[in-house]
Amino acid sequence: MAVYVLVHGAWHTGDLLEPVAAPIRAAGHEVHLPTIAGNLPGGSKDVGLDAAIGSIVDYLDEHDLRDVVLLGHSYGGMVITGVADRVPERLRRLVYWNAFVPNDGECLNDMVPPHYVALFDGVSQASADNTVMLPFPIWREAFINDADLARAEETFAMLNPHPYATFTDAISLSKNPAEMEIGKSYVLCVEDTALPHSMPWHPRLSEKLGLFRLVTTGGSHEACFTDPEGLADAILRAGRD
Amino acid sequence: MAVYVLVHGAWHTGDLLEPVAAPIRAAGHEVHLPTIAGNLPGGSKDVGLDAAIGSIVDYLDEHDLRDVVLLGHSYGGMVITGVADRVPERLRRLVYWNAFVPNDGECLNDMVPPHYVALFDGVSQASADNTVMLPFPIWREAFINDADLARAEETFAMLNPHPYATFTDAISLSKNPAEMEIGKSYVLCVEDTALPHSMPWHPRLSEKLGLFRLVTTGGSHEACFTDPEGLADAILRAGRD
Amino acid sequence: MAVYVLVHGAWHTGDLLEPVAAPIRAAGHEVHLPTIAGNLPGGSKDVGLDAAIGSIVDYLDEHDLRDVVLLGHSYGGMVITGVADRVPERLRRLVYWNAFVPNDGECLNDMVPPHYVALFDGVSQASADNTVMLPFPIWREAFINDADLARAEETFAMLNPHPYATFTDAISLSKNPAEMEIGKSYVLCVEDTALPHSMPWHPRLSEKLGLFRLVTTGGSHEACFTDPEGLADAILRAGRD
Repeated sequence: MAVYVLVHGAWHTGDLLEPVAAPIRAAGHEVHLPTIAGNLPGGSKDVGLDAAIGSIVDYLDEHDLRDVVLLGHSYGGMVITGVADRVPERLRRLVYWNAFVPNDGECLNDMVPPHYVALFDGVSQASADNTVMLPFPIWREAFINDADLARAEETFAMLNPHPYATFTDAISLSKNPAEMEIGKSYVLCVEDTALPHSMPWHPRLSEKLGLFRLVTTGGSHEACFTDPEGLADAILRAGRD
Repeated sequence: MAVYVLVHGAWHTGDLLEPVAAPIRAAGHEVHLPTIAGNLPGGSKDVGLDAAIGSIVDYLDEHDLRDVVLLGHSYGGMVITGVADRVPERLRRLVYWNAFVPNDGECLNDMVPPHYVALFDGVSQASADNTVMLPFPIWREAFINDADLARAEETFAMLNPHPYATFTDAISLSKNPAEMEIGKSYVLCVEDTALPHSMPWHPRLSEKLGLFRLVTTGGSHEACFTDPEGLADAILRAGRD
Repeated sequence: MAVYVLVHGAWHTGDLLEPVAAPIRAAGHEVHLPTIAGNLPGGSKDVGLDAAIGSIVDYLDEHDLRDVVLLGHSYGGMVITGVADRVPERLRRLVYWNAFVPNDGECLNDMVPPHYVALFDGVSQASADNTVMLPFPIWREAFINDADLARAEETFAMLNPHPYATFTDAISLSKNPAEMEIGKSYVLCVEDTALPHSMPWHPRLSEKLGLFRLVTTGGSHEACFTDPEGLADAILRAGRD
């Protein structure tokens, strides 16, 4: 039995990963689904990357979790990298699922195409609280391309505005992921076009991990909504030993 | 129910796509399989890209089709791009299936490797009517690599000489595909090596669409002959909403 | 019925491919599993690339094999390329399975990332007999990423030290693979990260074959241990006609 902690991506909350957690629990593991500070329902949006990382460190401390398989999705890759730098003694393996992999001093926006940065800049400036939302057409076509329209709309309604500072804050790490001694895996959903394939998740970002275990599966960036069982199976292959 | 118009590739005719159309019809949709001018059995081979595009525009006009999901395969991507520029009001979505995506002023030959252009130049000059055929070894190895030899031979016999001017004529567009406001999808058969993977269909050509929906499936460039059901399923996912 | 000769990769022996051979035999074919000089149990490790190639040429001669489908895995690609140059009259088709494809004058190390060359240099110098072994973490994460830990350990114990000269000797060919007139196929296991995907097997090495038939399947570099049936099926599609 292992302890899995699944860290969601931008705009999501932990409980949205429940359909992914269920098959992992059914396989005999303990699964935690914390929500990162800045994405809590009703919580403050005045949250930067440091506080976001801190909220997951606090979660591990409060529950005194050990030997954790720590997974991050998308933006969650920024968060788990920071957590691994702060409390490596609590972790057994890092699993990046179509996730950002930062080196020291990088921010999420450093790894996305310029047209996304321009979009996010505009949307955040138009917001009252420096938050960003995805326009629905991008969600539907590039994030959840494997869903039908009804599922795309239904899941879009579950998202919450994301604190933009977490995309623009540079991460501070004592060592880069490639130098971290913990085991690392990368789960790649092969139809994911949330990042364009000319600037892909893998191998562009995955290889920043140094030695890592690749596991591929079908599905889009939002396979948590469209193929939670297939995704859970890939996570189990990524997280074993 | 939607109206699908499937536009074949070079050397093909519309009726060769009937095995792909059948499952789409079975799912409740109307499917049309026009043959592009220049590929009609017994028809003239003295056809350029403008006339090829015009023949599909005429087909849509004559049948007064509206709200069309317009798919193009390979060379058919040149044709549907031109159709979308001329009669956008008839279309709901463009679906490129391992297809060329031209910007204004480009010809098909601008997007293929030099050794193919050299081959086509030689074959067309040796023909009596400026047409090109594929040598069988290229068909068998690079186009229909997922078939057995009998199926490769049987389907090769169904092809017709292709008017070469449609490969060398530059397309004239009032706007490039990325600026077209219509929805766009790209269906990628992942074993397709008709274009070498160092000069691939996706993302090299697909990303010229701007925002688009990627759908992947198995099979070669000629999945219409080797996996029509799998291809039809991918087309339905690409074409819905 | 065809004659298949499957040539293993570095650290392996022919008999380790028996689970792959079984389904090919069941499909009605004759399958041979020679072990390359330098990898024979109890045999000399003082073997260079020329002798390695020679040992497979000798095997074909001794058994007077004709019309052979000759497959090479990984390092085995070096070997079958040399065999094809020496005894083309015995062969019907070359099948590269996640294998190196050398041009005249190249050695295996010319096609791997610098960090692997540095690793191999160090390991071989520390050995008594200029052999290399893979560190277990690299085997587990990058070579057999699709196995569980028990299977990774069990198969690691089956490997034998590899004569390093076969990685550093330049191959001598009268013509490069692209100019060889024989049919060629490339079987790609898509989860294979033995070579990093920023320096991939396909299309970087496969396209050195000139015209070739691509067949893809799931699995890691060691699909012979983790999915022998799926691999055998891909080999049959690659080797037919």
